[in-house]
Order: sequence, then structure tokens, then C-alpha cells
Amino acid sequence: MENTIIFGKNAVIEALESGKREFNKILISNNARSDIKIEQIKKLAQNRGIVYQFVAKEKLNAIEPEGRHQGVIAQIAPVDYIDLDDFIENNKGKNTSVVILDGVEDSHNVGAIIRSCVCAGVNGIILPSRRGVLINSTVEKTSAGATNRIDIIRTNSLVSAVQKLKENDYWVIASDHHAEENYYDIDYTDMNFVLIMGAEHAGISKSLLKMADFKIKIPMLTNFNSLNVSNATAIILFEAVKQKVSKKL
Amino acid sequence: MENTIIFGKNAVIEALESGKREFNKILISNNARSDIKIEQIKKLAQNRGIVYQFVAKEKLNAIEPEGRHQGVIAQIAPVDYIDLDDFIENNKGKNTSVVILDGVEDSHNVGAIIRSCVCAGVNGIILPSRRGVLINSTVEKTSAGATNRIDIIRTNSLVSAVQKLKENDYWVIASDHHAEENYYDIDYTDMNFVLIMGAEHAGISKSLLKMADFKIKIPMLTNFNSLNVSNATAIILFEAVKQKVSKKL
Repeated sequence: MENTIIFGKNAVIEALESGKREFNKILISNNARSDIKIEQIKKLAQNRGIVYQFVAKEKLNAIEPEGRHQGVIAQIAPVDYIDLDDFIENNKGKNTSVVILDGVEDSHNVGAIIRSCVCAGVNGIILPSRRGVLINSTVEKTSAGATNRIDIIRTNSLVSAVQKLKENDYWVIASDHHAEENYYDIDYTDMNFVLIMGAEHAGISKSLLKMADFKIKIPMLTNFNSLNVSNATAIILFEAVKQKVSKKL
Repeated sequence: MENTIIFGKNAVIEALESGKREFNKILISNNARSDIKIEQIKKLAQNRGIVYQFVAKEKLNAIEPEGRHQGVIAQIAPVDYIDLDDFIENNKGKNTSVVILDGVEDSHNVGAIIRSCVCAGVNGIILPSRRGVLINSTVEKTSAGATNRIDIIRTNSLVSAVQKLKENDYWVIASDHHAEENYYDIDYTDMNFVLIMGAEHAGISKSLLKMADFKIKIPMLTNFNSLNVSNATAIILFEAVKQKVSKKL
């Protein structure tokens, strides 16, 4: 099996609990033996018959040199990307939401966005195969394991993906700071939608922007350059959450 | 002069434009000579009589080994922290907002939060001197230079700081996922407020939580662990922005 590594306590716990990832083995630092989350990892691993091993902290540092491993590293199968057709089929008949990251390049941003998507009940993330980052160890760590709780789709053509979503009754919302409409002027509660967020510097590519049914901006109180893309995504998604929660009451 | 380094094109441009930072010198990679933002940096530096030098990219890599410098590094005076009393005095008579980070440990999060604060028109940030991170190079980079657009206060006692703010007519809002009230049930438009955000794992310390006039949570659509602290901060602050923008219309 091809291996990837994930590290950090939450990332490993989520991957174990999801049952979606095949584990090769888990390495735990000798110094972390008595930690409560490490205990949880050991129990989850035992229940699934997964091997874990205590090793010197230096061995973990050699694998993850930036020291963000928190005493635990797992060798596991890479994320399973799923097919857009399957995703659309599996989510028929309910209000479904999808986020497209059009070339976002910072792994911390992609990880934080996936985490917010899961908290906001978003059903899928679409990433382009050839621009921006795909799912790597930093994304998995920053997502706190959220990569295991959402469908992740990668595609060679975002334009074709958006076209297919439109044909299947999704409304296309593009975040664009030139837009006139504010993000909170849309009713998100009763539709399938796909939210497109652009790259940190370049924004959304023109061909995608043309396909949007709604272009929205986040109004600001100063003229500072712009929000971080993961914060902008969270602001928009949680407006949708708020509307959905308020409607239920 | 004691020096700190900042890196990344936006961070350097913002520091130059703010006029608030004393520069020692700016190092520019030979490979970045023709970049449009580098041109802007050269012009701003010339106008202020600041020395810049072209150097081999390897020299920049030696100073900032993670390769996030984008071809430019500046040696400058550290951020000027300001005194809480001065801050309160300078902001008397207008609706003022402050964010307290109670032990946030990740420099990327602190930088992204400061950037969101500036976009949201927040007037000040308070950081504890002895827990969490203060302003370092990664914070300055991640903030895209927003550290130069907001008052930054550091304090030995967050409890005393909050006490002083309360005495000066600030309402204290604490983000706490056990809270009953939702963040959007508060009217932020006509008060001074201080928003307290807790550390990534530990949350807000008990002594501060007790001082809160409002405890608020962000409702979610799934039971996933929690939001990244910078995303949570952005969601709350932009609810306040939305209320302020809507009221003006």
C-alpha cells in the first residue's frame, strides 16, 4: 500500500474514528505515553487491530522536522478522492453544499477551510488536480482530522465540474471582492449550492467567475487589502449555518 | 536599534506605508528585481531614504529557511506595543472594539486574527506577555502587514486589563462553546466591546470567563470538535461588521 503520514493527536484520532483510512502503523513518542489523548489513540488502535510502537522522540522529529507532531505520527493510506458523479448521485434529494478552492496554495488555509466546512455541514470539497495544493500532511494536521469527515473530489477541470453541478440543480456562488451583493443577502437555506473561493492573490479565474449565478463580497470597515481566504470562507459558510439554524427554530 | 525581521511582499509594503516602523535595511532577491510589488517596495523605500540591497536568493533563504520570504526581507524595529491606559484614552467617545487572545499559541492563527481585526475595524489587540505568542516574524507575515494598522497591547495580567476595560464602559464578550447564547443574538452596534478568544485547546481561562457580560457560542451543523480559533474570531467579528453596515443603510 502507498503510504502517507499524518501527525498530531486530533488528526490521528479522527482518522482512526472515521474508519475510512487503512493504517500501516502508528508511532508514539516515549515521552507521550501518559497523555490522555494518546491513551485514546492506543485504545482505538487496539480495537481495530492496528500496530502501534513507542519510539524515541527524535525518530518522530526526523519524520516531521517542524515539531508539530505532538508525539504521534501515523503511516496511513492517502485520502480517497471520490468521483464527482458519485458525489452528486449520493447527495440527491437533500440540500447539498460544496466548496471549490480555485488554486488555494497554502496548506494551512486548505486545512482550516476543510475544518470549517465540516463544522458548517458542507458535503464536499473540490480541488483542482494541477493548481493549488491537494491533501498533504500539513492539510490533514491543520484540518484536525476533518479530511476524514467530508467527501473530497479532485478534478482536471473546474469548469467542467461547475458545469456538471449546474446541470444537477446547484446554484453557483462566487466570492469576489468586486461584487455588489453582500454575502448575507443570499438565502442559503433552500438550495443546493457550490461556493467558489479564489486563490490568495489571483482570486477566482475568469472562466469560473462567468459561470456564477451570484457574485458576493464581504463588506469591510477599513480599506485594508483583504481577508485571509480561510477566514473569508468561514464567514460566508457560517452565514449559511446561521440561516439554517434560525429557520429550524 | 534592536532589530526584528519581517518578510513577504505585503508585510514589507504595509510596514513601509504605515510609517510606524523604523527600517534598518531591506534585502531583495536578485531574482525578484522585476516584480511589480518589489518595484513598489523600492519606490516606497527611496521616498523614505531607506537602504535596499540586491542579494542572492540563498542569502534570504539563510535568514528565512522555510522559503516564505517571496524575495524580500526587511530588518526593522520591533512592533511598538502600546499602553492600555493610552489606548483607552485615545479611543474615548467612539464605539471601540478590542480582541483579547487568551494564550493562542499558533503564530499563523495570531497573524490571521490580526488581519481579520483590521478588516473588521477592530481598534486594538491585547496579548498576554507570558502565554501564547507575541508578535514575531511569522505573525507579521501571516497578518499581511496588518500588525502596522492596529494598536497592540501586551499585558502581564489579562484579568486586570479586562477589569480596567469594564471600568471604562466596555462590555465583555467571551467565546465559549458551552455558552447558551448564539454570537448573532448580540447587538454589537452601539457599545464598546472586548471579545475574548481562548487558546486552541484549553479555551478561555476560568478567571476571565467569570468576568464576561455575555458568553456566546457559534452553533454548528455537525458534532465535529471545533473551529480553528482564527476562523471562529472572523465569524464573530464579521457578524458585528454586518450589523454595523446594515444599520448605516
